[in-house]
Amino acid sequence: MIKEELNIIKVGGAIVEDEDSLKGLLMSFSGLHGKKILVHGGGKIATEVASKLGIETQMIDGRRITSAEMLKVVTMVYGGLVNKDIVARLQALGENAIGLTGADMNLIMSVKRPVELINFGFVGDVKYVNTRSLKSLLEVGAVPVLAPLTHDKEGTMLNTNADTIASSVARALSEEYSVTLTFCSSIPGVLRDLKDPSSVIRTISKADFAPMVADGTISEGMIPKLQNAFDAINDGVAKVVITSPSDLSGGTTILADPETDD
Amino acid sequence: MIKEELNIIKVGGAIVEDEDSLKGLLMSFSGLHGKKILVHGGGKIATEVASKLGIETQMIDGRRITSAEMLKVVTMVYGGLVNKDIVARLQALGENAIGLTGADMNLIMSVKRPVELINFGFVGDVKYVNTRSLKSLLEVGAVPVLAPLTHDKEGTMLNTNADTIASSVARALSEEYSVTLTFCSSIPGVLRDLKDPSSVIRTISKADFAPMVADGTISEGMIPKLQNAFDAINDGVAKVVITSPSDLSGGTTILADPETDD
Repeated sequence: MIKEELNIIKVGGAIVEDEDSLKGLLMSFSGLHGKKILVHGGGKIATEVASKLGIETQMIDGRRITSAEMLKVVTMVYGGLVNKDIVARLQALGENAIGLTGADMNLIMSVKRPVELINFGFVGDVKYVNTRSLKSLLEVGAVPVLAPLTHDKEGTMLNTNADTIASSVARALSEEYSVTLTFCSSIPGVLRDLKDPSSVIRTISKADFAPMVADGTISEGMIPKLQNAFDAINDGVAKVVITSPSDLSGGTTILADPETDD
Repeated sequence: MIKEELNIIKVGGAIVEDEDSLKGLLMSFSGLHGKKILVHGGGKIATEVASKLGIETQMIDGRRITSAEMLKVVTMVYGGLVNKDIVARLQALGENAIGLTGADMNLIMSVKRPVELINFGFVGDVKYVNTRSLKSLLEVGAVPVLAPLTHDKEGTMLNTNADTIASSVARALSEEYSVTLTFCSSIPGVLRDLKDPSSVIRTISKADFAPMVADGTISEGMIPKLQNAFDAINDGVAKVVITSPSDLSGGTTILADPETDD
């Protein structure tokens, strides 16, 4: 059986927070044919709103410590302000956008991260993606716009990393669709030379990964991003791409491991 | 053809903002069988958040003047904080809640209120309810939870009165369903004696209305609420009820005008 194609685009905070970049991204996204899902961040706006409300933002390893007060802020900013702004703009472009969190239709259930060395507070690790409900929305022609929020199914919202949401949803929906998962940021792909945006490496396989980390071609934030991409592609996602909003069909494509007979 | 029943419950800000009242309302709501929609307010929380952000709230005739900054606040508070809190709690009660604004799936399109004597700012008057999309959500078993926000289909969210959203949706969906529209507030119904909560008037017809306004039985905020109710019932809504959360099957029932032959 040939599976229908589904595009899942994850767009980072830096793009959502810049008027021109967001406009470009939404234009590119609305140009995609067929079924699609947009997953967005919005951390910088959350930090700004928190600051205005007198709530201090504390980050550890790039992750937000989410107190009860900060949870209210991210629920407002991600689930309300950023999400509905994107939905209204996509609607203006003729897209049947529907803005959702993991709580809505129990789309993404997570568990509050256990306290080990660090207490991240109200942060959720994804446990379950409701493939059936997501599919039912896609089948009626809706275009889900997912905020980086989940819930514990016990009445509490949880703050959840947007990359994780995108790859969890991509993996779960790969049972039903041929999924292309695209991580969109201001960097046009994995670069051979960080100072040269034209040095995009077109394809990377798992075999290339370790040597490229060793020689420093891949470093810092790109390491977990690629790890995430390899996990997705080895878990059934048809294609993973790292690119910028203006070039959704370009960027770096992550290659699956060669098929084995196990 | 006998239409399937649909319950639309509108719950005011005073209930949403009080922990015990909200808990009671959500329990009552989850006890309702069959298809249902919840419409909520949340004005007091918006006023509080606006105040903390240094944005002054200005009300005229009980309506919020919605500047560009206030629009961001109500989008955050209604569409994010209040809406997702209700959704997460309903999910914990086993309800397949989905939190939405009028922008999502273009469910409710409105036009920015023209400036006449007062400039209300980003306030929308409902022009169109997307019966088909709402029906498609109800048909897949979702329980829509509607925030008092709409959009202009040109990329801008608009602040819209929750009573108006509830009655607009009720009227539109009456083509498809036998709709009971229930307005839920801290007052148990239309009272014969405002000081006596047990003096609930069980039924009111349009013929009763004018004399009851004249003799002062019906006054202030109850006048537009009843006007709204009569408009709904004369526009196809099967039943309109004004009650409190603890007594969804009680309160005051608004009677339709006797059928005429026109």
